[in-house]
Amino acid sequence: MESPDQFAYRLQQGESVGRALELVGERWTLLILREAFFGVRRFGQLARNLNIPRPTLSSRLRTLVDAGLLERVLYVRDPDRHEYLLTDAGRDLFPAIVALMRWGDTHFGNQEGPPIVLRHHACGGLADPQMTCSHCGGEIDARNVTPESGSGLRAREPAEALG
Amino acid sequence: MESPDQFAYRLQQGESVGRALELVGERWTLLILREAFFGVRRFGQLARNLNIPRPTLSSRLRTLVDAGLLERVLYVRDPDRHEYLLTDAGRDLFPAIVALMRWGDTHFGNQEGPPIVLRHHACGGLADPQMTCSHCGGEIDARNVTPESGSGLRAREPAEALG
Repeated sequence: MESPDQFAYRLQQGESVGRALELVGERWTLLILREAFFGVRRFGQLARNLNIPRPTLSSRLRTLVDAGLLERVLYVRDPDRHEYLLTDAGRDLFPAIVALMRWGDTHFGNQEGPPIVLRHHACGGLADPQMTCSHCGGEIDARNVTPESGSGLRAREPAEALG
Repeated sequence: MESPDQFAYRLQQGESVGRALELVGERWTLLILREAFFGVRRFGQLARNLNIPRPTLSSRLRTLVDAGLLERVLYVRDPDRHEYLLTDAGRDLFPAIVALMRWGDTHFGNQEGPPIVLRHHACGGLADPQMTCSHCGGEIDARNVTPESGSGLRAREPAEALG
């Protein structure tokens, strides 16, 4: 029986949060993506909304384009102007942004309620997003799931496989 | 009718992602929390697992304790040793970490499958977590919800309220 520390260390070897954070674990990067979800596409508007230094914004946009989360698209010629559109990979970060938003509302919110709500097209209701199990539909939280090694970890390090 | 840019800018004023990221939008901070979810509690083990410089780890732990996400608890005396436990607020970040993990698996995963899976206690199945609408239970993604100003934004800036 290994200790929780050993278990955690082994999990960490093959695990995806670290790789995700290499890309988006920088404050400006996530805020740029948040703006993109809200429909902002242009350099000047991003710079104003986020109050971010322009060289920093250029650098972060380049990182996001190189990583395949944003696409840089020419929208007018002479002088050439570009806008930044979410790719599928960028769009797939939406649940993580929503989870952070919900956490901010819960722990730093004001008593009047959340500043932003999400209207769900499918039902027309306010979504109040939650993380659920695709298997049974029940809510997932830190206390009711247990991490196990998946096929990706077992395939790479058979001798190290858990369970 | 305002432009998407104006809409996004106004949303941003009262919005929670920014406040959440002030706390956890730093790579090490989220990785420390991830370790905490996997059961790691002690300084030395955190330092080894994350390969983080010890002064940086000290500083980030202090930030997390000051912010109320971790609690520093004495577990042995003379010499005194402490461990770091998740508070309720820290534990509530689990869905955001899970969302980042799932994204990493999807976009940077290997073909053998995810390195870590989550076993859901309620049903005994593998969770494959998804973000759903608490109103209808349907999945939420960037294309099927629309942000609106909530009561928190309207209460603070009545003249600026949307819709």
